[in-house]
Amino acid sequence: MSFMKIEEALAESEKVLTSKRFEHVKRVTDTAINLAKKYNGDEYKVGLAAALHDYAKDMDYTVLKKWIKAELDLPKDLLHHHTELWHGPVGSKMANRIFLIDDQDILNAIRYHTTGRQHMTQVEKIVFLADYIEPGRNFPAVAKGRELADNDLDLACHYALENSIQFLISKKQPIYPDTFFAFNDFTERLLN
Amino acid sequence: MSFMKIEEALAESEKVLTSKRFEHVKRVTDTAINLAKKYNGDEYKVGLAAALHDYAKDMDYTVLKKWIKAELDLPKDLLHHHTELWHGPVGSKMANRIFLIDDQDILNAIRYHTTGRQHMTQVEKIVFLADYIEPGRNFPAVAKGRELADNDLDLACHYALENSIQFLISKKQPIYPDTFFAFNDFTERLLN
Repeated sequence: MSFMKIEEALAESEKVLTSKRFEHVKRVTDTAINLAKKYNGDEYKVGLAAALHDYAKDMDYTVLKKWIKAELDLPKDLLHHHTELWHGPVGSKMANRIFLIDDQDILNAIRYHTTGRQHMTQVEKIVFLADYIEPGRNFPAVAKGRELADNDLDLACHYALENSIQFLISKKQPIYPDTFFAFNDFTERLLN
Repeated sequence: MSFMKIEEALAESEKVLTSKRFEHVKRVTDTAINLAKKYNGDEYKVGLAAALHDYAKDMDYTVLKKWIKAELDLPKDLLHHHTELWHGPVGSKMANRIFLIDDQDILNAIRYHTTGRQHMTQVEKIVFLADYIEPGRNFPAVAKGRELADNDLDLACHYALENSIQFLISKKQPIYPDTFFAFNDFTERLLN
């Protein structure tokens, strides 16, 4: 359970984020709540997760590294991947330790919002997608991402993952295992 | 150790393959031996592995399935992936059981020639690449693959994996985990 209000979560994020990042967080929160409305999802859970999804993003990477090392259930292989991947897992732990959120669905939506993972719940999919398609995004693939998100969460997640992997390959970057497990999972669902 | 001669291995492959496939196997064997010469590799090991790499490829998939189920150290998740991925692991087991080859490097080069894997040895890389660039191949990326293979095995493997992943994504196919781990492994080496 969690008793934190979405407005309270936003106020906490505002304290630790640049104004530009906080504007992004508000747009993701609105987008996530709208997707939950469309798909009969849990507006509170997606709203709270979205409001906190980037909580750790503007913190120094040495702070994030300490949390990854200290938290037993955070995978240590994160330390060998890009620091960009650290704020989701650490933010999820902070939401639990600092704001006492213990709803696993909310915590996982924060944790996996950058990489995705196998067997995502509806709450996780919505936060992942809201972050990808919020109105401030303007990369080439985003228009189709928005269109797909309007019609089918799984198709939209598959599309976002496909594009992320192709982007990383084109940048000669490694791909975090959860991302490709997520990609395979959605691909297999589309084939069946 | 293995006492089988490369010519004997080719003769065994000829017995169980279509003539078209056997021509491919001979070209891969020649290509692999040439790469071993260029890189001071083990001509015998790459030649023997190449001569047997497609040994199981024209067998009925029900036969391959029996081997995957029966061999304890073959991963069962293969059964949930494309049958195209089965002949490498099963062929490697057949090379061990039927021809008594017990050199792990030769067996692994057969086993992983389709998918690649993390931490490939030189023998594995050469067989994997020879299969990708042999003179009978004519897909668009092959010219650059040949050029890279002439200069740097790791760059060439990275390129082949990158293209394979992009091809699978474009075909809406899942990507076998070993392929992704191989891709990340080579990517990280290029970055360091």
